[in-house]
Amino acid sequence: MNLLLLQPEDLGTHSDDINRVTLSDWRAQHIREVLRASSGDTLKVGLLNGLIGTATITAISNDKVSLEFELHKPPPPKLPLTLLLALPRPKMARRIIRAATELGAAEIILLNSYRVDKSYWQSPLVSDETLHKAMLEGLEQAGDTHLPILQRATRFKPFVEDQLPNLLKNKIGLLAHPYADQGPPHSVSQACLLAIGPEGGFIPYECEKLIAAGLQSFSLGPRILKTETAVSTLIGRLFL
Amino acid sequence: MNLLLLQPEDLGTHSDDINRVTLSDWRAQHIREVLRASSGDTLKVGLLNGLIGTATITAISNDKVSLEFELHKPPPPKLPLTLLLALPRPKMARRIIRAATELGAAEIILLNSYRVDKSYWQSPLVSDETLHKAMLEGLEQAGDTHLPILQRATRFKPFVEDQLPNLLKNKIGLLAHPYADQGPPHSVSQACLLAIGPEGGFIPYECEKLIAAGLQSFSLGPRILKTETAVSTLIGRLFL
Repeated sequence: MNLLLLQPEDLGTHSDDINRVTLSDWRAQHIREVLRASSGDTLKVGLLNGLIGTATITAISNDKVSLEFELHKPPPPKLPLTLLLALPRPKMARRIIRAATELGAAEIILLNSYRVDKSYWQSPLVSDETLHKAMLEGLEQAGDTHLPILQRATRFKPFVEDQLPNLLKNKIGLLAHPYADQGPPHSVSQACLLAIGPEGGFIPYECEKLIAAGLQSFSLGPRILKTETAVSTLIGRLFL
Repeated sequence: MNLLLLQPEDLGTHSDDINRVTLSDWRAQHIREVLRASSGDTLKVGLLNGLIGTATITAISNDKVSLEFELHKPPPPKLPLTLLLALPRPKMARRIIRAATELGAAEIILLNSYRVDKSYWQSPLVSDETLHKAMLEGLEQAGDTHLPILQRATRFKPFVEDQLPNLLKNKIGLLAHPYADQGPPHSVSQACLLAIGPEGGFIPYECEKLIAAGLQSFSLGPRILKTETAVSTLIGRLFL
């Protein structure tokens, strides 16, 4: 946790309390036990979907931590990136969503695909609640406060035919595809939608539909990467 | 497992057996239960530190899988990358080493640093055996056969003063550093040594020593990344 992320409901409503907060949940425990902070120490703090700043610990006990804080600057800018991701194996999804959030993806769309096992969509590991938590962890790691927009496209064809062309307006669309001829572009300066397939890749029909909707395919080279590795590596190539 | 990785000791010594192998370990189980392969199916195969090719399953039973194989082409080339990595938290080390192997790092050096807890070096999670397994997993994922060279530099100062300058001959040396002014270079074409600090970063004294030895520092931007994310993102930026 590099940023203590406050939620609107943490804050008092009296004007006296507007810059004070007392925490008693896992964050208080983290401040005590992992950061080993004491009264008078300062922490980086941010308000969910709001500004970041500095907090000073005013009191600390076995079950509570009280802080005074000031929020005075915007969080790091988001990348102009929409990640269109075939729903990963549930065990991996949390980590991938966390890393994409950490890196600053503005929008994440989880897409169905022929090689996505139908049962994955029902897994508690990809529930809204689990993935919301994963995104909060990504924000706390990166020092960001703005949640990415997370959507699900559980039907491939209607999404690709009806929604994708609109999403691609004013964006370049890229499809990571093991058998494409050319590598990914370098540092893109404009908004970008990046599609990454499931383990085993999108099937040829899906690739055709994605390309017909406006995506350009590119190859990641001769190595077959895990989805989580591919996401970070590509963001590095395109945006770092 | 995208590549069935054979080890020299799997292979028979009779000339009749030179292209045949029978497996009864976890690989046989993986072929049966995960790949759900049957007799006559083909798999991508490679010999550790050797060539890659194709194997055909000739017999499959509850505890054994027999294959005939041909090795006819080299694995994907390594990246000309030496990763100089402050020893990560043991829980994370395995995954980071696996990903660096997957991405093709030629050499990985685990370095001591002020912010590396001394106990980490004794953890079974960073033992030679555990990290060897992690590298094998990275090779199997990527379709590679060549193990990276893994070394440990348990004393910071002697390593940086006595060994690092030699390692940097004919290489550019880069230091990921949160407070540097400039970003990382794009697609480097030459061999590169990339240093990545521990959680919390190298301390100023360590940065000075690394820069004095010939590293140029660069910033990763305003986001604080997990080591595993930083490694993949930087490799994407520098080499993809």
